[in-house]
Amino acid sequence: MGSLENRVRLQDDYDCFFLLANMHAFTTRAESPDDIRRDTLDIAKDWLAAGIDPERSTLVLQTEIPAIAELTWYFAMLLPFNRVMRNPTLKTEIELKDLGDHYSFGFPLYAVGQCADILAFRAELVPVGEDQVAHIEMCREVGRRFNWTYCGVDPQTKDEQHVAEGGVFPIPNALVGRIGRLIGTDGKTKMSKSLGNAILLTDTAKEIKKKMGGLYTGRQTMTEPGDINNALFQYVRAFIKDPARVAELEDRYSRGDNLGDGHVKVEVAAAIDELIAPMRERRAALEGEAGDKRVLEILRAHHAKANAIAEETLYMAKQAMKLDFGPRKLSFP
Amino acid sequence: MGSLENRVRLQDDYDCFFLLANMHAFTTRAESPDDIRRDTLDIAKDWLAAGIDPERSTLVLQTEIPAIAELTWYFAMLLPFNRVMRNPTLKTEIELKDLGDHYSFGFPLYAVGQCADILAFRAELVPVGEDQVAHIEMCREVGRRFNWTYCGVDPQTKDEQHVAEGGVFPIPNALVGRIGRLIGTDGKTKMSKSLGNAILLTDTAKEIKKKMGGLYTGRQTMTEPGDINNALFQYVRAFIKDPARVAELEDRYSRGDNLGDGHVKVEVAAAIDELIAPMRERRAALEGEAGDKRVLEILRAHHAKANAIAEETLYMAKQAMKLDFGPRKLSFP
Repeated sequence: MGSLENRVRLQDDYDCFFLLANMHAFTTRAESPDDIRRDTLDIAKDWLAAGIDPERSTLVLQTEIPAIAELTWYFAMLLPFNRVMRNPTLKTEIELKDLGDHYSFGFPLYAVGQCADILAFRAELVPVGEDQVAHIEMCREVGRRFNWTYCGVDPQTKDEQHVAEGGVFPIPNALVGRIGRLIGTDGKTKMSKSLGNAILLTDTAKEIKKKMGGLYTGRQTMTEPGDINNALFQYVRAFIKDPARVAELEDRYSRGDNLGDGHVKVEVAAAIDELIAPMRERRAALEGEAGDKRVLEILRAHHAKANAIAEETLYMAKQAMKLDFGPRKLSFP
Repeated sequence: MGSLENRVRLQDDYDCFFLLANMHAFTTRAESPDDIRRDTLDIAKDWLAAGIDPERSTLVLQTEIPAIAELTWYFAMLLPFNRVMRNPTLKTEIELKDLGDHYSFGFPLYAVGQCADILAFRAELVPVGEDQVAHIEMCREVGRRFNWTYCGVDPQTKDEQHVAEGGVFPIPNALVGRIGRLIGTDGKTKMSKSLGNAILLTDTAKEIKKKMGGLYTGRQTMTEPGDINNALFQYVRAFIKDPARVAELEDRYSRGDNLGDGHVKVEVAAAIDELIAPMRERRAALEGEAGDKRVLEILRAHHAKANAIAEETLYMAKQAMKLDFGPRKLSFP
């Protein structure tokens, strides 16, 4: 929700590329290709339903962009092995998914791949949840290093001057949205479909109410002063539109002024439902085979748009690396 | 020499693809792109001079084959991280180049990349030095695992039956050449241009004689029984064509029958010079800018040939992985 709301708004102000990370999905689910395909199409449907506009923005299907895989190789050469293994996003995911030392080589590779996901489009801003800001840092490092090593950019150059000084890559900045990544309805970790703690665009009003109802706060009575930084109040601030009402709820909750968690939950669930209802309707229109066909058509048209830029970036990078052996043309007949 | 002689002969019996690993070169020399470009062209020239026939065989310039980078990603998902890090070729290279723990992420990534180098062409045989046989093993493993996971090949299936059972990838076998990798003229490690212990196609008769003269054997007199498994006799067996003469030299050397190391070295140097002389001449004809232009033309024509197969392989692999979002066309206008 948080991420999607953010993305939909960004379309008004920016030329947006939204990545469907279907290659990334294989890092931990390599043995479930059918599920990954199903999820990829479902996510694209969710996006379209939420208001991502395929006429204004570009959907990037990762496995259809060869430049991402190729740039990953080149960036891997510039990143010390230990730097990649120390990447905070990587370490968090290994803990979160309880992988111990049983993970594929694709797992750390993906930390490098994320740099290519971003830099392939010479992105200037990367909309992220707060927990992802540290990850952008490695992307920024490798962008700088590339520009220093192959484009003659002086290491003293400020980030925003890299392109003016001849660098191939702008050094991107993180753009943390209003909501950031929402905590899941388990109140423990960030919302994630695969962890089963997410509110889905396909959820009915009843399902939303049930999920919200299950959110643990630890508060016992409606006169007990409550913590307005708890998971429930993250939802309050994320979904209740009227700032005056938010302030009132915060005030009464913190004072324990006869405000039960159950009541707040019902109010939040109603707000979520109001937000989701039109999305749910658009989402329903994309169900089934006809919906799949429509989404596949959009994706295919977008491969061409996305590759036009990614191929240009790759060629610029290869020229800088003295790897120019003539142009190539990629088309989707 | 050993590797080249082997390759030239293979052309008579096989449909050959010879890889110029210019992406691999960046694993340890990312800051020297000009040198890498120079070396890439020089190696191609050496190959052509040695008798690689561009009408019969395909030169594969690694950075022009996007499917190699893409398949690397997919294979990385199937290989446990610890398996890659235990790869014997990787460990040997880290020791040989004295890298300690200062190496790029591209370094272990390349061990996975080598699987893609081979499997992108659905190779059945891989001509290697003896020291590389262990590396092919990881490639064989990942080929099998891909076929099991995505193509419904039963894990009990014999290697040679994988394609018949629906696997995308044949399980390749190592083909160790007559000479294998020659020990260098330092008598210590395998011959390698970057270690400065190699005989080059551009070496004159005098230079060859000097390099051979410097080969250490430890033998003091010409009546001392010599070890016919030493570095010098590896050269004897590799380059002296007449088997009767080789047997005679081995016999006299092992008995210490008045045969000095210096004499053997001169005879080997003459044999090497005889072999190299016509190559040296063809090599000279490819010097300079005109030679560069000729080689670049050949490489460019070969990108198209190489990609025709690699793109087909990639598409087969993506179909098996349920990643078919329609065909693409790669051309070199």
